[in-house]
Amino acid sequence: MADGATRRRGGGRAGKSARRGSAVIEQMPWRLPVNHDKPTEPLSEEGVAAIHEGAMRILEEIGIEILNAEALEIFRGVGAIIDGTNVRLGRDFIMEMVAKAPASWRMTPRNTERELVIGENHILFGNVSSPPNFWSLETGRKMPGTRVQCAELIKLSQYFNCIHFCGGYPVEPQDIHASIRHLDVLYDKLTLTDKVVHTYSLGKERVEDAMEMVRIAGGHSREEFEASPKFYTNINSTSPLKHDEPMLDGWMRMARANQGLVVTPFTLAGAMAPVTLAGAVAQSLAEGLIAIALAQVIRPGAACAIGTFTSNVDMKSGAPAFGTPEYMRATQMTGQMARFYRLPMRASGVCAANVPDGQAMWETSNSLWSAVQSGTNMVYHAAGWLEGGLIASPEKFVMDCEVLQMIQRYLEPELWATGPDEIALDAIAEVGAQGHFFGLQHTQDRYTTAFYQPFVSDWRNFEAWDQAGGVWTAERAHGLYKRIIESFEPPPMDEGIREELAAFVARRKEEGGAPTDF
Amino acid sequence: MADGATRRRGGGRAGKSARRGSAVIEQMPWRLPVNHDKPTEPLSEEGVAAIHEGAMRILEEIGIEILNAEALEIFRGVGAIIDGTNVRLGRDFIMEMVAKAPASWRMTPRNTERELVIGENHILFGNVSSPPNFWSLETGRKMPGTRVQCAELIKLSQYFNCIHFCGGYPVEPQDIHASIRHLDVLYDKLTLTDKVVHTYSLGKERVEDAMEMVRIAGGHSREEFEASPKFYTNINSTSPLKHDEPMLDGWMRMARANQGLVVTPFTLAGAMAPVTLAGAVAQSLAEGLIAIALAQVIRPGAACAIGTFTSNVDMKSGAPAFGTPEYMRATQMTGQMARFYRLPMRASGVCAANVPDGQAMWETSNSLWSAVQSGTNMVYHAAGWLEGGLIASPEKFVMDCEVLQMIQRYLEPELWATGPDEIALDAIAEVGAQGHFFGLQHTQDRYTTAFYQPFVSDWRNFEAWDQAGGVWTAERAHGLYKRIIESFEPPPMDEGIREELAAFVARRKEEGGAPTDF
Repeated sequence: MADGATRRRGGGRAGKSARRGSAVIEQMPWRLPVNHDKPTEPLSEEGVAAIHEGAMRILEEIGIEILNAEALEIFRGVGAIIDGTNVRLGRDFIMEMVAKAPASWRMTPRNTERELVIGENHILFGNVSSPPNFWSLETGRKMPGTRVQCAELIKLSQYFNCIHFCGGYPVEPQDIHASIRHLDVLYDKLTLTDKVVHTYSLGKERVEDAMEMVRIAGGHSREEFEASPKFYTNINSTSPLKHDEPMLDGWMRMARANQGLVVTPFTLAGAMAPVTLAGAVAQSLAEGLIAIALAQVIRPGAACAIGTFTSNVDMKSGAPAFGTPEYMRATQMTGQMARFYRLPMRASGVCAANVPDGQAMWETSNSLWSAVQSGTNMVYHAAGWLEGGLIASPEKFVMDCEVLQMIQRYLEPELWATGPDEIALDAIAEVGAQGHFFGLQHTQDRYTTAFYQPFVSDWRNFEAWDQAGGVWTAERAHGLYKRIIESFEPPPMDEGIREELAAFVARRKEEGGAPTDF
Repeated sequence: MADGATRRRGGGRAGKSARRGSAVIEQMPWRLPVNHDKPTEPLSEEGVAAIHEGAMRILEEIGIEILNAEALEIFRGVGAIIDGTNVRLGRDFIMEMVAKAPASWRMTPRNTERELVIGENHILFGNVSSPPNFWSLETGRKMPGTRVQCAELIKLSQYFNCIHFCGGYPVEPQDIHASIRHLDVLYDKLTLTDKVVHTYSLGKERVEDAMEMVRIAGGHSREEFEASPKFYTNINSTSPLKHDEPMLDGWMRMARANQGLVVTPFTLAGAMAPVTLAGAVAQSLAEGLIAIALAQVIRPGAACAIGTFTSNVDMKSGAPAFGTPEYMRATQMTGQMARFYRLPMRASGVCAANVPDGQAMWETSNSLWSAVQSGTNMVYHAAGWLEGGLIASPEKFVMDCEVLQMIQRYLEPELWATGPDEIALDAIAEVGAQGHFFGLQHTQDRYTTAFYQPFVSDWRNFEAWDQAGGVWTAERAHGLYKRIIESFEPPPMDEGIREELAAFVARRKEEGGAPTDF
């Protein structure tokens, strides 16, 4: 083992000697992948009806706590039954509101070529968001996130074409005071990436600041900004059955400003939701649908997506588990329900593993494949997540991007084309039983694009791999991460816009930023 | 890194101190999992027809080399067009023969409770077979396989309930002379396991010896042995378009003796088959179907399965790649074709990775999920495979079994049950918005069986995991492997039968075993 570790260090050094500024890897081009697969649907029609009935009865009979006075007033205005902060709504009203939500919608970041379509069978991927801690092979320790690390993960999010949007804090930069953290990180994001960004709904100041910064970065007037979604928020209910004040405040602000709205209850079966998956999914839907109804009251046609984060606890410790069989089935079931409600759907790439090893990758693979199988449109946390979301890791980020690229490639219809050129009878006849297909014109014509080309997978045989240092995947990913950061070049930005953004941040810092009493 | 390695060694020592004879892990019970999912079907109806047309035209117009005189005579007898060793057959004949093959069949090993159903939506898993080399964390080196290592992998195959059959040499024991290798390994297999075993088709002596040993182990007369399949062979065509002498010899012997027959062309797109997947699949089917037709001529109703091993080469090196997007789609496409021909299907768990790391697990996950998605019935190499099948690894074996157990759990219909008990409205009402579900009767009643329980995954948080040594997955698997081997107890066997088996092996060794001129 010590020998193995030494050799793996060798791989790290090799990484550092790479030229700056060169294309570190050959990667697939930017595109919005389309998922042609018929979704995996465990639920029968009756099963879908039973879960819908459950969600509706939760909303009608049990109710949801709405801890936001303004939202309560809005619900009162549409005839909800309100008891203190408990809100009950009839299914006719809910379904009428949900029907107003578009089945797909677009978000346009400052680089309009990075426009996203949320829905329409697209499956789009975003970076890990919100871990308080950072882990890398360099330190081998879990440590509180910093702005430098956060910026590195933003750079990886920009670098990889398979990452479509840049959500949340890729790691929470705890060296920035909480009152101004959103300003610095969003400045970094808007200058280091040109992809769709996100705001937390943590108090009105943060949301208003984020809207203003995204407006400035896009060079929009306020009117232009509100003409269509430019970015989005994601809110989580406080399961069971509760929406808190700041989340709903941000949700309503973003709805009024015509921005993207994603609601993702975190219903951990056996803890914050029933131990049975159907119940956990029904509860999750009830919590999500009431937020979507609220948005539709505020702005009919508001751009909404329903998220799922139904997993289970470890039976031994009560700790959350991720990428489990239960997680996969809950995601597929929610996918069926999202299609029933004609809403775009969000899921995640997740694992419980603490380091980017075998377990991390089978758990992450399970969750990512369930996103494909469920017809998910937005996949959060698709790169870089460890320890149930408590750690962000750059090695894991690079490794996950290989899996994401493979999923993108998997979705390309040319793989299952069956025209005469693909059946290739002439080629088969030409080679017959004696030769091989390497030198054939049919092969040569297609060779460079026929197959997926990896960037961190090592496909050499053992001897060649061993000769080259015997480097395990995580260490190879570490080398790539370092080289990508070293050679990173931010996307172009108009200098006037950059100055306006910087001035806005400076002014808001002078004003004290945002309250930290959340 | 050195620090990390030291800590990981610590985990290995901890493993060794485990008590002998205890149940090392809690695992899921033995069962034949049923795959209820509708398969993922990239091909349209026209696509299926196009690939079928391609396969038929290969058989009708191009032909297959049949390097076995007896098989040639059989084909001549049914009106094939024969030119030297090239055999062409009309589609009517092929389809008539294929229609005689049963859509499902059973295999009964010496422990009749381990009987397998091949087909009927079952998905069954087998150990890695045939790697010449062994790698474990203990040595960190690739080394030629030995009988001891082979026996260890047989013990793992017996130990894990998620492994349903014990195929091939789990590692090729190169310290046994090739002339008697089959005798020693099959003796080890039949005494260390009570699961379905397999014979290579490498010359008549090996196949006849294997049949005799399986007959003895089952306590059968020859008549009882031939009354129904007790074990199976798997043959590979020599792609492109060739079946060699010993493979066909074994195939025909096993057909006459009414044993299980699996044919798996190894059509590496771009090398031994067209660079286009549809062509590689069509060629694979043509090579497979002619063997199945041969078996049906010999024994109408013979128990056949069609295998797929269509992957692609690395565009850079020409080396085979495994667990790729192309591999997944080829497997799904072959699944559609197997259903078209109403034949049980065999696929594999594969990877190109050289060590049991992240890459190994995403490649293996890709291949195993494509087995599920394709409706595969037999999954070869499902545990322990590395380096494109050139290495067997006990750590990888243990890790793969976690993934296999998760797949088994994923297939259990209770996960998507939607009765009133699962929707759990009463539980949701009882907890309301204030509490949690941990203590609820609804939870307590289901807690121990509600969720998948891992054995090598570590779901503790980082701190608890770090405190316990910070052991990465491969090293944890190493500890389990050692403890399983230390405490292994072979399944019971009648002493008279064991003696008869040993005497048979001794006699055949005295006779010189089998020729080694293959």
